[in-house]
Amino acid sequence: MRLPYAKGHGTGNDFVILDADVPLTPELVAALCDRHFGIGADGVLRVLPNTSPGAAWFMDYWNSDGSLSEMCGNGVRVFARHLVESGRVAEDAPIPIATRAGLRTALPEGPGFRVDMGAPVLLGTSWAQIGDAKFDGVGVSMGNPHLVCPVPTVEPLHLWESPAFDTDFYPEGVNVEFYTELEPDHLRMRVYERGSGETLSCGTGTCAVAVAYLHAGGRTTGTVTVDVPGGRLVVTVDDQTCWLAGPAVILAHGFVDTDALRY
Amino acid sequence: MRLPYAKGHGTGNDFVILDADVPLTPELVAALCDRHFGIGADGVLRVLPNTSPGAAWFMDYWNSDGSLSEMCGNGVRVFARHLVESGRVAEDAPIPIATRAGLRTALPEGPGFRVDMGAPVLLGTSWAQIGDAKFDGVGVSMGNPHLVCPVPTVEPLHLWESPAFDTDFYPEGVNVEFYTELEPDHLRMRVYERGSGETLSCGTGTCAVAVAYLHAGGRTTGTVTVDVPGGRLVVTVDDQTCWLAGPAVILAHGFVDTDALRY
Repeated sequence: MRLPYAKGHGTGNDFVILDADVPLTPELVAALCDRHFGIGADGVLRVLPNTSPGAAWFMDYWNSDGSLSEMCGNGVRVFARHLVESGRVAEDAPIPIATRAGLRTALPEGPGFRVDMGAPVLLGTSWAQIGDAKFDGVGVSMGNPHLVCPVPTVEPLHLWESPAFDTDFYPEGVNVEFYTELEPDHLRMRVYERGSGETLSCGTGTCAVAVAYLHAGGRTTGTVTVDVPGGRLVVTVDDQTCWLAGPAVILAHGFVDTDALRY
Repeated sequence: MRLPYAKGHGTGNDFVILDADVPLTPELVAALCDRHFGIGADGVLRVLPNTSPGAAWFMDYWNSDGSLSEMCGNGVRVFARHLVESGRVAEDAPIPIATRAGLRTALPEGPGFRVDMGAPVLLGTSWAQIGDAKFDGVGVSMGNPHLVCPVPTVEPLHLWESPAFDTDFYPEGVNVEFYTELEPDHLRMRVYERGSGETLSCGTGTCAVAVAYLHAGGRTTGTVTVDVPGGRLVVTVDDQTCWLAGPAVILAHGFVDTDALRY
């Protein structure tokens, strides 16, 4: 089968984008995402027509291992970019997108989009440990669980394997973020994603870091610029929700021969 | 610039293939090979017309970091496949290919090609060390330096960073291979490539392993099947040279927007 695809990324979190009517299986998704035997990506975004009110398009998001996922903060911007570039939506108006986590709206902003990531929930304090070094942190739920630890500098941290954490506090595992303040409301962070390892960017993790940083300063709202390894994101926390803004790039279009993939 | 490309691999060693007249710079090569911000590959194979006698096409091979390289045992098969698929050569005849290491000929064989990798040179004994474990090995030059160590089983080895080696013996570094015999003339190997880390497949390393294995059995010629992490290769050593046979796959064709890459 000769399958049309696009390849894109948001702050280095990269995706294979497929259009409607492509039959997907977990095996095909994993084969497409394989970085040596396939196209290579962190996940697949399939554009499906949406059947419920509020949005014309549904973001069918798959992880690189072939499992389904609710939402992806970086992926939804790339999805919005693809909707614009494929002529499905106007590029200067809000773009409603249906996801498994509910309706999201992508607002065009600068070279990318701003997306409502939902309301954060503070979970209280916990800890992480790397080797002999223990780190105090704050738990934040963005729908998925995070532990956010301030550190003097993020560069020397060894994130080759998961930091240890309190498994009573996080029985289903946790994404662990470390951040340092570069200047007021401008942070640098690194993240160890549950099940993936260290990544170039994590949308919900970036929101969690901003929320924990504001909380540490006694604030519940504010705008924070966060440098992730893959680029720069801006988080705005208001009384209602958390907005994540950042770039979205489509860099290639082509056809993949699915019979040539490795399953 | 909108650049046509193909993506292919040989036993998981993967390449972006570009056609003649594409202006290449180290920066563009590195941006294309970036696995999150680009197409993603271990290197770039550019098809250039050859100007000297013996071959119509020159394999212009670049490493993923943008440096030039003489030859690539897996890449030359993928290059041959691309010459066939693009209609430049017949698929059932020997394909002479000019490289920076000299003329190579790809012979169609099974689902791939067999390529003359040049004559191996035994270098004597040396050692490698991982943590507290020391391994005796045999040095083999395939144009580049190798150290081949037999082990009871390759799976448990920690190859997250380079094994230690005798820097007097290998002043310019070394590719370190570990292998185990599955049955007579059928081996399993893993390789730590100088400058790249552990890889799915290394053409010259596979030849070096076969040569060292035959040498350990008192032989100077023979045919050895070698399972690498990315698949299966067959090495034939004769009185003149060393042949490497294996698959070559082209899996995608497309256009990349070079302005959307990260430099």
